[in-house]
Amino acid sequence: MSRMAVKESDVDVLVIGAGPSGLMCANGLAKAGVDVRIIDQRPSKVAAGQADGIQPRTIEVLQSYGLAERLLREGNQMHMAAFYNPSANGGIERTGRAADVTASTARFPFEVTLHQGAIEAIFLDSMASMSVRVERPIIPTSIKLSMDEAELADPHSHPIEIVLKHLDAEDGQVDTEIIHAKYVVGADGAHSWVRKALGITMDGEQTNYIWGVVDIIPETDFPDIRNRTAIHSHNGSCMIIPREGDKVRLYIQLTDKEVINAENGRVDKAKTGPEHLLQVAQRSFSPYTINAQEFDWWTIYIIGQRVASQFSVNERIFIAGDACHTHSPKAGQGMNASMNDTHNLVWKMTYVLRGWANNSLLETYEFERRKYAQDLISFDKKFSALFSGKPRSEANQDGVSHEQFLEAFQTFGAFTSGIGVHYAPSAIVNTAHQEYASKVIIGQRMPPHVFIRAADARPYELQDLLPSDSRFKIVVFVGDISDASQGERVRTLGTEMAAPEGFVHRFGGKSHDTVFDVLSISSATKNKVNYTDLPVALRTHWSNWLPRVLLDDTDMFARVGGKGYETYGIDPLRGAMVIVRPDGYVGMVASLENTATIGQYLSSFMKS
Amino acid sequence: MSRMAVKESDVDVLVIGAGPSGLMCANGLAKAGVDVRIIDQRPSKVAAGQADGIQPRTIEVLQSYGLAERLLREGNQMHMAAFYNPSANGGIERTGRAADVTASTARFPFEVTLHQGAIEAIFLDSMASMSVRVERPIIPTSIKLSMDEAELADPHSHPIEIVLKHLDAEDGQVDTEIIHAKYVVGADGAHSWVRKALGITMDGEQTNYIWGVVDIIPETDFPDIRNRTAIHSHNGSCMIIPREGDKVRLYIQLTDKEVINAENGRVDKAKTGPEHLLQVAQRSFSPYTINAQEFDWWTIYIIGQRVASQFSVNERIFIAGDACHTHSPKAGQGMNASMNDTHNLVWKMTYVLRGWANNSLLETYEFERRKYAQDLISFDKKFSALFSGKPRSEANQDGVSHEQFLEAFQTFGAFTSGIGVHYAPSAIVNTAHQEYASKVIIGQRMPPHVFIRAADARPYELQDLLPSDSRFKIVVFVGDISDASQGERVRTLGTEMAAPEGFVHRFGGKSHDTVFDVLSISSATKNKVNYTDLPVALRTHWSNWLPRVLLDDTDMFARVGGKGYETYGIDPLRGAMVIVRPDGYVGMVASLENTATIGQYLSSFMKS
Repeated sequence: MSRMAVKESDVDVLVIGAGPSGLMCANGLAKAGVDVRIIDQRPSKVAAGQADGIQPRTIEVLQSYGLAERLLREGNQMHMAAFYNPSANGGIERTGRAADVTASTARFPFEVTLHQGAIEAIFLDSMASMSVRVERPIIPTSIKLSMDEAELADPHSHPIEIVLKHLDAEDGQVDTEIIHAKYVVGADGAHSWVRKALGITMDGEQTNYIWGVVDIIPETDFPDIRNRTAIHSHNGSCMIIPREGDKVRLYIQLTDKEVINAENGRVDKAKTGPEHLLQVAQRSFSPYTINAQEFDWWTIYIIGQRVASQFSVNERIFIAGDACHTHSPKAGQGMNASMNDTHNLVWKMTYVLRGWANNSLLETYEFERRKYAQDLISFDKKFSALFSGKPRSEANQDGVSHEQFLEAFQTFGAFTSGIGVHYAPSAIVNTAHQEYASKVIIGQRMPPHVFIRAADARPYELQDLLPSDSRFKIVVFVGDISDASQGERVRTLGTEMAAPEGFVHRFGGKSHDTVFDVLSISSATKNKVNYTDLPVALRTHWSNWLPRVLLDDTDMFARVGGKGYETYGIDPLRGAMVIVRPDGYVGMVASLENTATIGQYLSSFMKS
Repeated sequence: MSRMAVKESDVDVLVIGAGPSGLMCANGLAKAGVDVRIIDQRPSKVAAGQADGIQPRTIEVLQSYGLAERLLREGNQMHMAAFYNPSANGGIERTGRAADVTASTARFPFEVTLHQGAIEAIFLDSMASMSVRVERPIIPTSIKLSMDEAELADPHSHPIEIVLKHLDAEDGQVDTEIIHAKYVVGADGAHSWVRKALGITMDGEQTNYIWGVVDIIPETDFPDIRNRTAIHSHNGSCMIIPREGDKVRLYIQLTDKEVINAENGRVDKAKTGPEHLLQVAQRSFSPYTINAQEFDWWTIYIIGQRVASQFSVNERIFIAGDACHTHSPKAGQGMNASMNDTHNLVWKMTYVLRGWANNSLLETYEFERRKYAQDLISFDKKFSALFSGKPRSEANQDGVSHEQFLEAFQTFGAFTSGIGVHYAPSAIVNTAHQEYASKVIIGQRMPPHVFIRAADARPYELQDLLPSDSRFKIVVFVGDISDASQGERVRTLGTEMAAPEGFVHRFGGKSHDTVFDVLSISSATKNKVNYTDLPVALRTHWSNWLPRVLLDDTDMFARVGGKGYETYGIDPLRGAMVIVRPDGYVGMVASLENTATIGQYLSSFMKS
């Protein structure tokens, strides 16, 4: 191989691995205009099986990228959960039904199931529209990070050298490529090459729970086959996950003797198969019958519960998704945690790359996401134990009762839905003035609510006005602008925000509308207010199409909207300001009189 | 021109004119699998201006063809109306705001505005996906209808010979084509060639009201520029119609001297222009200012109010849209009436062409749509007079007051929204058993309501389960199936519907599921019911994906659904059957015990 022939190039971000985590990362960076490449070792995207559950918060996140519409069109929705336990006559019987999602503020109060390949296709098509394609099959063969402090501190440097091997290179062709990257994201799965190359350890342990998974089109008289159903039977546990089209996924508890090779004590996939898995399930289903003509996909696994000891090296190389946390799939968390890892990372990399933020902003990625992963494992331990445990019976008074399981299911609901994810105080989560918007929890995602546009009374979901467009959203709840003294306060605020020394210009400069997006929401009613009543700094000309002045009022038929101030815990006269991070999480709250505190917040991670 | 060279061919339906009426016709027929061609004299679709208002009922209709999503994405929504009248100090002031749409059952409680070219593009793209394209520029030059009674009675005959001229034929090329059609639809506008060729007269008269229209991107301090606003001023009347993007349409009342040529008494377009129209509007807007940099489109017109004396010749040649009714554009009816004409016609032609229905079914087209057109003219006369009239003032006590205008605006609301369209009794509208579903008005469109799917508690809008797929929908409100005696009645009904002598098999034959679609809706709650409780004739296997067994209950979060039986006026224990025509209008209602009456209804127009 001649030295000349090896391709050598620079890139801002190289993403390794094109699963959900890597795709969320590459798509988000591409949308922000960042120079990004993404590689994967597989020759093509997955066709069936794998992870398939999208939780309510993840739907909100996908919506913020304009990707939820297709997900909702193609996927199945799980609204209801059902619970079956041993009946007096030996089989199972339904002990209850409940909402599948228990987070009351979820905008989409259901889970979506769709096979991983279809979910990946949504990202791939979105990326293709921005001319970013997954390069495959390619594997990294070496990675080096410069230890030069000046180089690491310089956002314009390319301190990472990574060597790639093109697996489909023909004989005689050069199959090697050298890339110099500013940042690398290892989203390369549970067996992450990046993680191993960096010597990052996984903390945690293997469990003794062995499960099989099989995707079928069932023929059954079971009445809850289209609900997420947990079956506890004396013949083992089983979870039903209805899927897109007519498909259903079954998670089936297995015993050691069914799958463990007695000689070496390891799981032996050859000892089982989809027909066997279905037979085991059939015993749990009795007296109902379930059959299938063919099997779409199947696997078996032992639950491992581990978290990576660190999520980054020098805030230059990151790992995300399964590369940094593994846990049981039954609560449908895997793909969601993975996508939300990189959703958290994308805007931070973008800000540093643009020179808007200090490198230290990137430290909050591990801070926020590792804590979350630890909580996830802790939840998974409790849930897996309950789910894999024997049902309570006369003979087994220590078993798991319906009430116990249901209570856990509902208690964990806020967590499993992703709605309850709560980032702890840090440079980007400032809880000082929570009292001005007592129900807009700082560190949690901005809750959804419908407001109407002042100019034409058209209802809008606020979350749709807070897209993942890498801008901080300054949501100004201007209060009752029909009150004279409040009108005066709002005019003062407008003057402050328009001033050169105000935070908008200090941190946004001339192109402040690429950094900040200002929305105003008044508590006054639609018959009273003119959008022209607000100072110009708090509204843009209506010709910007997206609404910028909203009212906390119902639509003309009182079908949607209203009570937003109450829902958010904001004083309807005096209002409040809510700073929403580019990823949709609440960064801080302030009173209208205290724009200085917003400046202080921003100065803790932004360059002025 | 050699005889051999003239192209001569057969077609089931030839549509002449590719405006909204013709496009709705061709798209609907193509969707039903009918052999259809559509021609237009224009070399390309319209680019700007023209009609642009889509009423609530028309949105429902477009939704039933799967076309509303794009309309809603691209169009502007008008939720609010505002009213301005002369103020004490000489200019105008707002006298009130109100809902733009007053029909309380409207599923989409707003009007959509979007320029005609964009609306046509929605149809053109839909048709292209079915390989139907508008052939243009082509004009018809002669039309002949056989008067042979046997030929006219035979649904397989091609009794119409029509000669077409291709306007873009090059020198030496043959520009003539002869088509033999089973049916012809003349949707060729207010100056319809088809109507004139058939000698059909227009009944009615010209008014004295002269109006100008101009589309602009305004610069203004007028606070209701994004609402549908009616301005009555001492300087004339003006109507604001906000449009897609930043555009606004102004309808401006003109005086004779501004546009009438004194010598011949006719409207002289050369006497005015967009700048002049805007100047006239500026006088009405005072004390507010309105300006524009450029003009997108403009025209002037005198309101004519006419209806064609007949809508068909021998139920073989039909006219539709502007070809059979002209009226003022300000209530936004034109395009809507036109599209709904052919929406009404499409399924009837389909049924006769398939040999399912007698020719007499086609008589109901004129019966239903001419009556509607007459109502429309009658409404337009009242509304135009009010709108063109002088405002009430000290000096003019006979003028139009705000209260008078608002009352008329709201009274006419059900009509202008299209929601109130009510077809009179006929072979296809049988009002005999209205009492079993007292609020599902027979002859009106099936009202929207959200129900949940029994199998998984997922909410569905019932209208979305009644698409324009040329099937009659048998909506079986099965009542409370948890009640033993009702369960028995429902099982009996299931047996009757599955029987060879039952109406389903009598009129649907072996392929009855292409003629009828059966849906069941129970009043029992989601915690009680299994979808498997219903007889098979009243539910299809869940694998048909579209839900067929629904419940009148809320979703898991009580956000949508519930009270459907109450809304529809149906006994929650005993239920009722509602027969919805393929165009979404209610054809009849029956009790569960009286399937015989459904058979009688169908036999009045269907072949068994």
